Amino acid sequence: MKIQEIMLDESRNAKLTAIIQDVEGEYGNIKKRPAIIIMPGGAYWGCSDREAEPVAFAYSKAGYQVFILRYAVGEHRGWPYPLDEYEQTMELINEKQDEWHILTDKIAVIGFSAGGHLAATAATTAKHRPNAAILGYAALNKEISDLCQPGMPYPVEEVDDETCPCFLFAARDDNVVDVCSTLQFQQALWEKGIMFESHIYAYGQHGFSTAEPHINSNPICSRVPNWVADSIAWLGDMFGTLTPAGMTEPTCGPKFSDDREATLSVDCTLGHLKKQTGMAELVLKDVFAQLQAGVEQMYGPLAETLTDFVKLFKLKDILKIAGIPQEVVETLDAALKQIPNQK
Amino acid sequence: MKIQEIMLDESRNAKLTAIIQDVEGEYGNIKKRPAIIIMPGGAYWGCSDREAEPVAFAYSKAGYQVFILRYAVGEHRGWPYPLDEYEQTMELINEKQDEWHILTDKIAVIGFSAGGHLAATAATTAKHRPNAAILGYAALNKEISDLCQPGMPYPVEEVDDETCPCFLFAARDDNVVDVCSTLQFQQALWEKGIMFESHIYAYGQHGFSTAEPHINSNPICSRVPNWVADSIAWLGDMFGTLTPAGMTEPTCGPKFSDDREATLSVDCTLGHLKKQTGMAELVLKDVFAQLQAGVEQMYGPLAETLTDFVKLFKLKDILKIAGIPQEVVETLDAALKQIPNQK
Amino acid sequence: MKIQEIMLDESRNAKLTAIIQDVEGEYGNIKKRPAIIIMPGGAYWGCSDREAEPVAFAYSKAGYQVFILRYAVGEHRGWPYPLDEYEQTMELINEKQDEWHILTDKIAVIGFSAGGHLAATAATTAKHRPNAAILGYAALNKEISDLCQPGMPYPVEEVDDETCPCFLFAARDDNVVDVCSTLQFQQALWEKGIMFESHIYAYGQHGFSTAEPHINSNPICSRVPNWVADSIAWLGDMFGTLTPAGMTEPTCGPKFSDDREATLSVDCTLGHLKKQTGMAELVLKDVFAQLQAGVEQMYGPLAETLTDFVKLFKLKDILKIAGIPQEVVETLDAALKQIPNQK
Amino acid sequence: MKIQEIMLDESRNAKLTAIIQDVEGEYGNIKKRPAIIIMPGGAYWGCSDREAEPVAFAYSKAGYQVFILRYAVGEHRGWPYPLDEYEQTMELINEKQDEWHILTDKIAVIGFSAGGHLAATAATTAKHRPNAAILGYAALNKEISDLCQPGMPYPVEEVDDETCPCFLFAARDDNVVDVCSTLQFQQALWEKGIMFESHIYAYGQHGFSTAEPHINSNPICSRVPNWVADSIAWLGDMFGTLTPAGMTEPTCGPKFSDDREATLSVDCTLGHLKKQTGMAELVLKDVFAQLQAGVEQMYGPLAETLTDFVKLFKLKDILKIAGIPQEVVETLDAALKQIPNQK
Repeated sequence: MKIQEIMLDESRNAKLTAIIQDVEGEYGNIKKRPAIIIMPGGAYWGCSDREAEPVAFAYSKAGYQVFILRYAVGEHRGWPYPLDEYEQTMELINEKQDEWHILTDKIAVIGFSAGGHLAATAATTAKHRPNAAILGYAALNKEISDLCQPGMPYPVEEVDDETCPCFLFAARDDNVVDVCSTLQFQQALWEKGIMFESHIYAYGQHGFSTAEPHINSNPICSRVPNWVADSIAWLGDMFGTLTPAGMTEPTCGPKFSDDREATLSVDCTLGHLKKQTGMAELVLKDVFAQLQAGVEQMYGPLAETLTDFVKLFKLKDILKIAGIPQEVVETLDAALKQIPNQK
Repeated sequence: MKIQEIMLDESRNAKLTAIIQDVEGEYGNIKKRPAIIIMPGGAYWGCSDREAEPVAFAYSKAGYQVFILRYAVGEHRGWPYPLDEYEQTMELINEKQDEWHILTDKIAVIGFSAGGHLAATAATTAKHRPNAAILGYAALNKEISDLCQPGMPYPVEEVDDETCPCFLFAARDDNVVDVCSTLQFQQALWEKGIMFESHIYAYGQHGFSTAEPHINSNPICSRVPNWVADSIAWLGDMFGTLTPAGMTEPTCGPKFSDDREATLSVDCTLGHLKKQTGMAELVLKDVFAQLQAGVEQMYGPLAETLTDFVKLFKLKDILKIAGIPQEVVETLDAALKQIPNQK
Repeated sequence: MKIQEIMLDESRNAKLTAIIQDVEGEYGNIKKRPAIIIMPGGAYWGCSDREAEPVAFAYSKAGYQVFILRYAVGEHRGWPYPLDEYEQTMELINEKQDEWHILTDKIAVIGFSAGGHLAATAATTAKHRPNAAILGYAALNKEISDLCQPGMPYPVEEVDDETCPCFLFAARDDNVVDVCSTLQFQQALWEKGIMFESHIYAYGQHGFSTAEPHINSNPICSRVPNWVADSIAWLGDMFGTLTPAGMTEPTCGPKFSDDREATLSVDCTLGHLKKQTGMAELVLKDVFAQLQAGVEQMYGPLAETLTDFVKLFKLKDILKIAGIPQEVVETLDAALKQIPNQK
Repeated sequence: MKIQEIMLDESRNAKLTAIIQDVEGEYGNIKKRPAIIIMPGGAYWGCSDREAEPVAFAYSKAGYQVFILRYAVGEHRGWPYPLDEYEQTMELINEKQDEWHILTDKIAVIGFSAGGHLAATAATTAKHRPNAAILGYAALNKEISDLCQPGMPYPVEEVDDETCPCFLFAARDDNVVDVCSTLQFQQALWEKGIMFESHIYAYGQHGFSTAEPHINSNPICSRVPNWVADSIAWLGDMFGTLTPAGMTEPTCGPKFSDDREATLSVDCTLGHLKKQTGMAELVLKDVFAQLQAGVEQMYGPLAETLTDFVKLFKLKDILKIAGIPQEVVETLDAALKQIPNQK
């Protein structure tokens, strides 16, 4: 392990702490590791130590290369300095990916409160997008963003098709950043079909960080500390898990379906495909007729309603249940991928 | 322990299974127990066994008196029969509270999918409201309600000031009940200031019940089974915990603040109180001036913004931080409770 | 689900409660289930309710068919009545295996305190041995057995080669059954090469049962309640896990190695095989020479000590590391299985 | 946070890595922190990196000042060099307790395999004893100690009245350090009345370290990774928990009772006190008579056996149950503390 302190911008006192773990040798076939960039909170007035090292330890323990980004705050916080420093960090990581042993397509960000605003802005607007974002009691909507620093983007309004999967957590009784900030962000992710996980705890107020007893003294409900292990498990679902034999495959994709991709596929939902016209309609007509016939045969008069219950199933899942051979599915998929998606 | 099967309505085949545990004796000072009513899912076409007994065992283990409500489904499901059967269950529990050893102000409902619709309807519209509701991948908005059974209420539109605290869980990739159903219900609870806890898991699809390996075969992420223990801990926060010495105190109230009560109090938020006019303004003028002066003395020019960051603090919490003596707070509280709330 | 009360012996008031869950239908390909027999404690003076139903709920939830055995106690407790009633229970289960949907080679026992004495006696001496035993703060050695009821066997002295795998738990500060009872039983299991898992918690005293807050009021350390979930996971390791597709394979065998079997095999440890003379020595001479040569080539002078560090490795594991082809290992295994074991 | 590398002995290449966290400021009233010294394993041939930093992260996250001791190994491992280096570490910590913000009466050691031998030797024989020891699949008995390095002490034979509380963990199927090493150490701790916690997992082999997926590739049962969080909770029981308001009180003492102290007290067990003669007998005669009379009154003929069941109760606990006033207990305690203990 080595720890490096890197000055990103001396005039703004923006700094990066890199906690780099070894690879190979005792670590077997681990040649590179996934990484995480930590953005502490502090209303853009400061960068909280309580949301820096204690958080770093958790992801270091899980095998990540960890970076603590102490972005410009206080008098130096003028937008877009903090975001620039994030971009600079990503460029540095790409540059040093060999020296630092980093899988550059497995880089997460985690931000708390105002740091969550920065992390969400990175996830929704940055040139170098992260591959996953963890947002803790984050400042995400207009009201709280403006309060922190007028002139910044409002993450809830910036979610787009390229936004990475997100892990959200907050306490219902947050009395600094209204929990509606997180609720609205969930809704925005849902609208774009982005995958996410979200935990709103009954109570825990604001700023609990890892919720270790030595870190937090606000009343918290017993579930609050779970976000740490849960977020690590979730990252494993999104990135795959680091093992001495290398990374395993992800267990979850970044999108709910292919409904918002440029072309169609069997990973589109039935409901979405049913609304397509033209070539798609032609290609799918027989398939749909066959599925409808099968359902009617099994359920009779109920069939109409029943198919409404599977509108959100992906075509491939329905075809699998219907016992359609894999090669037929593949041929269909190839055909659909030639057809532009009418979103 | 004794198990009773009670026919609620023979023509509709609506049945109640009561699993009643003993009290006193080896159970010390436990004279009565909290209770939970389970409403299995099944699109109002059936009542799933997988969401009945296996769920009952979890809450029985935690010390609850448990009722499985097999409400009218299929051809008998005409609204409001299922809700009537819930009301009937509550009347029965009230009637037999001594025989069944039940704390009638500590009755929760738990419902899955269509059962979640019924539980949420009970929580938002019933004559006999439950004291807490657990809603699992529940059908809560217009689209899915209409699909289940036209003519029923839409829970997301029914949330009111009397709605009990709720515990919500669902999977992001639910392909039967769109997860937006749960998202919209969160939003509705937030708007009314109702306390809740919510867990949206990355993936787990629909109908995982307790997510025990013998119950579920869909792919689920590792966090899904946590809802069982988490919901029990949450009920403990809302109701207090059953111990051989009796129930402990709840650790969490049913509302975010007193902002929606009939009269004001020190449990209203600062932001809400600042908007009050007339008598309230008069009573609070000196208090606010004093708080503002204190902040300005400590933070100077930042003070204006700073006070915006505490708008969601309850007055009593701010007064505590400011070191105002408890008796002053109590006097103020008494005065505020005389003043009607301008919502 | 159905619950049956069966009188095993009216004169001794010995009773069996069977909690039988459904199979097939919504439970998919589950045709039979594993089972567990619960033996509450009570110094053979009584059968504690606190160690009966609340324990049953945990294993019912995990999918087991559950039996609560209220064996002869008090004036009727004369040995071997309680053990007879256990045998009777096993005969009944075998008889009714179809009606009760039970996998008769996946039957566990769990006993607490004096019930742990009975469960351990079943595991070590019964005609119908269980397939796994869970022993909670159990009375297992001479001193405590004699105190409960003179004339009974002492489980620590009865462990034999046929003893099933065991899961032990107790609190270090047990002031009723000295924790040395559990320590001695661990030692006895180790001596016979039986697999086990054991958790001695820092404090929790005696009789905590599931350690739910409504069950226990003694001071317990935070780990105590873990035994419930841990024991269920451990049963899954020993029996395989029940899923809608049927039982999975066990992940752990009942013995440390084949060192105590009638004949040799590649599942014997290297150290054990090295002590064999005659035919075994002849068969293994070349294998050992080859392994030794390989080690010396890699490690030189250290080789002597190094091979001492692998005495407890099974021969098959060493051969795998050494890259010996699977068919050679199988041929060797076949040859060894012809040779009687010199224990 | 700062990290310091300290050369303890250049000729033997013995090194100490200190990971020192900040205090006060954002950490509130935390002025000093508890500490832990990590001793990686490696058969005294090396110090495994897998049992160094990854372990450090876990305790750093929990708020501890962490030291990794890379003691003399390989050609430099001659005994007692490694133990000397431990003593040197403790002296350094004492010297720098202010600079490093360390509570010098809350220092734990954790050792794995051969490092567990060193940690246990520290716990049982060192000049500067630690206050708690965590021993992972540790080499503790004669056989494995001699194999590692002849001439070293055997920890199982060194346990004494001053040995600190221990937390033990190992896998039943350990094929390098026979699990009997841990079993024997449990027994030795029990004999001296030392408090301990112990987890023997069904399987996990040897050297799993934190059992994170990136660290370990041996098959492990699901419970293995729990030792990390469990050991931290246990340290909290022994030391108290670090909070922003300072350390809380320990919840568990280092001894089962006062039975092995120099003088008697009400913290001695009933059984031990009953065996005392002379002055103690005189002082306690009336108390015992009173207790016996009370029991006989309640239970009649059973009373004789009943009192045997409470032999391990501390006198103060029995007196409390019997309703003896606190001031009487205190007077008795003061009297007993004047009387030498006949061990």
